[in-house]
Amino acid sequence: MADKFVIGVDFGTESGRTVLVKVGDGEEVASHVHRYADGVIDEALPGGKRLPPDWALQNPADYIETLKQGIPSVLRQARVSADDVIGLATDFTACTMLPIDAQGNPLCFSEEFRDEPHAWVKLWKHHAAQPEADRINEVARQRNEPFLQRYGGKISSEWFFPKALQIIDEAPHIYNAAHKLIEAADWIVLFLTGEEKRNSCTAGYKAIWGKRFGYPSPDYFAAVHPRMRNIVAEKMSEDIYPQGARAGGLTARAAELTGLREGTAVAVGNVDAHVSVPATTVVEPWRLVMIMGTSTCDMVCGTELHTVEGMCGVVEDGILPGLYGYEAGQSCVGDHFAWFVENAVPPAYAAEASARGLNLHQYLEEKAARLHPGESGLIALDWWNGNRSVLVDVDLTGMLLGATLATKPEEIYRALIEATAFGARMIVDAFEASGVRIDDIVTCGGLPNRNRLLMQIYADVLGRELKIAASEQAAALGSAMHGAVAAGSQAGGYDTIQQAAARMARLSETRYRPNPAAKAVYDRLYAEYRTLHDYFGRGANDVMKRLKALRSEVLASGS
Amino acid sequence: MADKFVIGVDFGTESGRTVLVKVGDGEEVASHVHRYADGVIDEALPGGKRLPPDWALQNPADYIETLKQGIPSVLRQARVSADDVIGLATDFTACTMLPIDAQGNPLCFSEEFRDEPHAWVKLWKHHAAQPEADRINEVARQRNEPFLQRYGGKISSEWFFPKALQIIDEAPHIYNAAHKLIEAADWIVLFLTGEEKRNSCTAGYKAIWGKRFGYPSPDYFAAVHPRMRNIVAEKMSEDIYPQGARAGGLTARAAELTGLREGTAVAVGNVDAHVSVPATTVVEPWRLVMIMGTSTCDMVCGTELHTVEGMCGVVEDGILPGLYGYEAGQSCVGDHFAWFVENAVPPAYAAEASARGLNLHQYLEEKAARLHPGESGLIALDWWNGNRSVLVDVDLTGMLLGATLATKPEEIYRALIEATAFGARMIVDAFEASGVRIDDIVTCGGLPNRNRLLMQIYADVLGRELKIAASEQAAALGSAMHGAVAAGSQAGGYDTIQQAAARMARLSETRYRPNPAAKAVYDRLYAEYRTLHDYFGRGANDVMKRLKALRSEVLASGS
Repeated sequence: MADKFVIGVDFGTESGRTVLVKVGDGEEVASHVHRYADGVIDEALPGGKRLPPDWALQNPADYIETLKQGIPSVLRQARVSADDVIGLATDFTACTMLPIDAQGNPLCFSEEFRDEPHAWVKLWKHHAAQPEADRINEVARQRNEPFLQRYGGKISSEWFFPKALQIIDEAPHIYNAAHKLIEAADWIVLFLTGEEKRNSCTAGYKAIWGKRFGYPSPDYFAAVHPRMRNIVAEKMSEDIYPQGARAGGLTARAAELTGLREGTAVAVGNVDAHVSVPATTVVEPWRLVMIMGTSTCDMVCGTELHTVEGMCGVVEDGILPGLYGYEAGQSCVGDHFAWFVENAVPPAYAAEASARGLNLHQYLEEKAARLHPGESGLIALDWWNGNRSVLVDVDLTGMLLGATLATKPEEIYRALIEATAFGARMIVDAFEASGVRIDDIVTCGGLPNRNRLLMQIYADVLGRELKIAASEQAAALGSAMHGAVAAGSQAGGYDTIQQAAARMARLSETRYRPNPAAKAVYDRLYAEYRTLHDYFGRGANDVMKRLKALRSEVLASGS
Repeated sequence: MADKFVIGVDFGTESGRTVLVKVGDGEEVASHVHRYADGVIDEALPGGKRLPPDWALQNPADYIETLKQGIPSVLRQARVSADDVIGLATDFTACTMLPIDAQGNPLCFSEEFRDEPHAWVKLWKHHAAQPEADRINEVARQRNEPFLQRYGGKISSEWFFPKALQIIDEAPHIYNAAHKLIEAADWIVLFLTGEEKRNSCTAGYKAIWGKRFGYPSPDYFAAVHPRMRNIVAEKMSEDIYPQGARAGGLTARAAELTGLREGTAVAVGNVDAHVSVPATTVVEPWRLVMIMGTSTCDMVCGTELHTVEGMCGVVEDGILPGLYGYEAGQSCVGDHFAWFVENAVPPAYAAEASARGLNLHQYLEEKAARLHPGESGLIALDWWNGNRSVLVDVDLTGMLLGATLATKPEEIYRALIEATAFGARMIVDAFEASGVRIDDIVTCGGLPNRNRLLMQIYADVLGRELKIAASEQAAALGSAMHGAVAAGSQAGGYDTIQQAAARMARLSETRYRPNPAAKAVYDRLYAEYRTLHDYFGRGANDVMKRLKALRSEVLASGS
C-alpha cells in the first residue's frame, strides 16, 4: 500500500508555511513558505487609509493565497498524489479575529467596507484595544467574576472581547453589519469546509470560554457595554470542538483551490503554540513544552484544575483532549536579543563578525560563551516587552544593573539571555508551587537549535535537563498530526493524538544537562533576580509604571 | 612699562600643558602641550618589568621634559622675554606621589631601583592599594578617629597613606631607602626651587592633614602598621603652606632648563581641580565650581566647618586661603558617555554620523536634543565607576531602567546624561542640607563648552542658572594666577588671589537657564532617582556589591 500523507498549514505573522508529512513516521517530505503580500498592516490599509498607532491588521486574502500556493507546491515537490493525502489541518496566531458576512466572507472583501479599518482582520498584536480591556477587567473585578482566576487575574487587550468591544465602541455599523465575529483559526476552517465548527483552544484561551463554564454571562457583558449583552448568541457560537476533531470535508471550491480531493478530512482550527505540543512528543500531563522564539510560550497539561499565579489561561481540552491545558509565557525572548543586536552593538563588533562570516548573534554568542556565570557582574530584568507570566503586566519595563566602565557588549548580551532564563524559572516555580508538577521539559521553536549558549544557560538556571523537538517546524507538524487524527485510523490516520505522536513526533538527540557549578552560581543570581522582580513587579516601587505614564503624558502634551 | 607675564604648568594624566598669561588681564598669550613619552605606566615598567593589575605609575622624567619643552616654547611663541616673566606655578593630579632620595631625586632615576615598581610615581588612579585603604579605614573606625568625618567617613585607596602603606607592605626596602615620600605637586616645586615646602591642598585632601588638627597621631599609624608609626616625622613634612604662598626662587639649574631667570618666584604646588576655582572667578564662599570632564569635581568654600555627607574632604586653606574648602565629586561623567559611545552605539549610527561629518557624541547629542524630558521612559543610576559623593562607595555599579523594544540609543545617551545631572543635584542638596549654602554655580572643564544639551539638562535638573568659565584651560590659568600671587604686587603681580581673580579670571557670555516646564518633569524624575539611589546605595538591597563580590569570586576560582 502506498504511503499516506497529511498536510499542515501554519499561518504565522508574516508568512504561511505548508508542510507535507508522511503519516506513518512523521517525515516532513516537503514544505513551502508563502510570504504575505500585505504582511502586517500597521500603517495604512491597502486602499491607502492611514491607521492610528498600535493597530495591527492582516488581509485574509493572504491566507487564501498561502493555501493556493503552498499546497500544490508541496505536492509537486514530493510528487505525491492528492489521492494519498488523507487529512489537512491548520493553525493560526491568536487571537487573530475578523468580522464576516452571512456567506462567511470577510467584511473587508466587500466594496462597501474595504476602507473601514474595523472590517479587517485584527492581528494578535493589535494593541489598540487597551481601553476596552481595562473596562472588561474593571467590570469583571467589580462583579468578582470567577473566570478571572483562570486567566491570571487579567484579560489581555490582545484577546477576543477587547477587540470585539473596540469595534462596538469605534465602528458600531461594522459590528451591526457583521454576521459573525470569528477567530481566523476558525474562519480558515469555515473557508475550507463550509462548516463553522469553532475550536476549544481559541475559545478557551482567547474568548473566556470553558467546557464546564461556558462564556461569561450576558449580564456581565451588558455591564461592560449594553450592545455586548448578547454578543455570544448574536456574533459567536457555542458549538465548540476539542483539538483533533474533524470539522468536515474539503469543499469543491477549496479542493479546486488547493489541488486536494473534495471531502478530504479537515480538523478544527488550532493555535500555533498549542498545536506544537504533541509535535514535541508531549501528549501526557506534567511535561512542560517551551516554544521559544521571539517570545516564549509555556504549555503544560494536568489532570486537575489549579489556580496558578500569572497564567495566560487554563483550558480544559485546550491543548490535549481530556486534560487541562495550562499556558504561561514570556513576552520578550528572541525579540530581546534582536533589540540588543540592532540597537546596542558597536561597529567594531559588526566589522569583526562580518570579517569572520558570522552574524552578530553568532559572534556575540561565541564571545559570551567564554564568560563564566557571575563573571559579568550584571543582572537584568527581562521586561523589555512587559511581563506576561507571572506578573501579567505590560507596563513593566526592562532593567540592567551592574554595569561598569569595563562592561562589554557580550556581557550585556549574556545577561539578557540569563534574565530570560530566570524569567522561565519563575514560571516553572509558579507552576510547581500551585500543584502543577513539571516532570520534564521539552523545547521547540526557533531558538533551541540556533543558540547552544542560551540552551545551556537555561539548563543551568532551571537545574533541569532540556530536550529539543526534532522538528524545526513544530506548529506545522502538529497541525499535520491533527489532520491525521481528523482523518481517523480507518482512512489510514490515527484515532487519537497520542497514537499520532507515538509515530509522527520525535526528539532531537541533543540534550542540555545542567552543570552543577554553574547551577550553584545561578541559584545565587536567581535569588537576586527574584528580589528585584518582586521589588519592581509587585508594587514596592512602581517606578516603571510611573515612567511609562510620564512618557505618555509628555507625548500627549507635545511639549 | 612692558606687560608682565606669569606661567602656569598643568601636569595632567597623559600630558603637561604650559600657558603663558598676561598678568594685567589674564590673556592666555601662548600655550604648549607636551605628551608624556611614558604616559600612564600600567602594563610594564620602561625597563620591561611587568606590573600587576590595577597599577598605574608615571615617570618623573616626563614632568621635567614638560618644563623643558613647554616653557621655552611659550616664550618663543609669544616673543616674551624671560625678564618679563615674574612668576611660575604648577598644578598636578593628586594623590600622585613618589619616593625620593636625600638629594630630592626620584628613586626610580637610580640604577639600583629602576626595576622596582614601588620606586616609581604612583599616579592618582593607581588602584592597587585597596587592601591598605581597607586596613586604614578599619583601624580608624575601631579607634573612632575624628578625622574620618572630614573625609566623608572613608579614606580612598587613591590617597597618600594607602599608597605609602603599600610600599611598606610590598617593598619595605624601598620604604627604608626613601628619604621622603612626597606628592608630585610638591616634588616639582622642590625640583624648581630646591625648597621642600609642601602645600595645604594635597596635605589636606590627600594626606589627612588639617591646619587645626595636624596629621593623624603616631599611635593611630602604629595601630595600622608598626613601621608606619613615625611616617610623618621620618618620611614627610609638617612645613605646610597655603595656596599662593611663595615657595622660593627658581634655581640656576631650573633656570637653565626652562630659559627663565634664576630667582623667578615659584608658588607652592597646587592640585589641578582645586586651582581651577579662582580661574573661574570664584574667590568667595558659597559659590560652587563644577569641573566637568571624564569625572566631575565639585568645589565650594565656606566660612565654617560643617560635616557634609559623602564629601571627599573639607580642608582649611585647601582651595582659598582663609576659607574651608569643601570637595565632592562624581566619579563617572564624561567617562560614562565615552563608554556608551564605544560600546553601545550601532553601526548605522556611526555610518550616519560619519556621512554627516559629525563625531558620535555630536550625532547622539543632536538626536537626544529632540527628545523631551520624560519622553524616553528611562532612568539610570550613574554609577558605572562607583559613587564618589555622596555615597563614597566604589562597589556600586550602573543601572538602567525603563527599556522597551522601542528604546533607541539616543534615549539611553540622554538618560545617562540625566543620571549624572541627578547625581550632581544629590551633591548640591547634600551641601545645602548640611549648612553649606550654594548661591551660585560656575562650570569649567572639557564638557561645558562641548555639550550644550548636557548643560541645559544640568540647568533644568538643578533648577539653577549655570555659568561657564571663559578659559578652557582653567587649571593652567589658575596656576599662572598663583604664580602672580607668589610674585607679589611689588614685582608686578598681586598680593592676594582675590586681586588676581578680579583682573585675570573671566566668565563666558554663555549662560544656561532652567526651563520651568523641563524642571517640573525633572523634579519628578529626580524623586524617582533618589528612591532608587537610596534603595541600591544605602543598604536596602546590596545586590550591586554582592554581584561584584561574586564576580571576584568567579574570577579568582577561574572556574
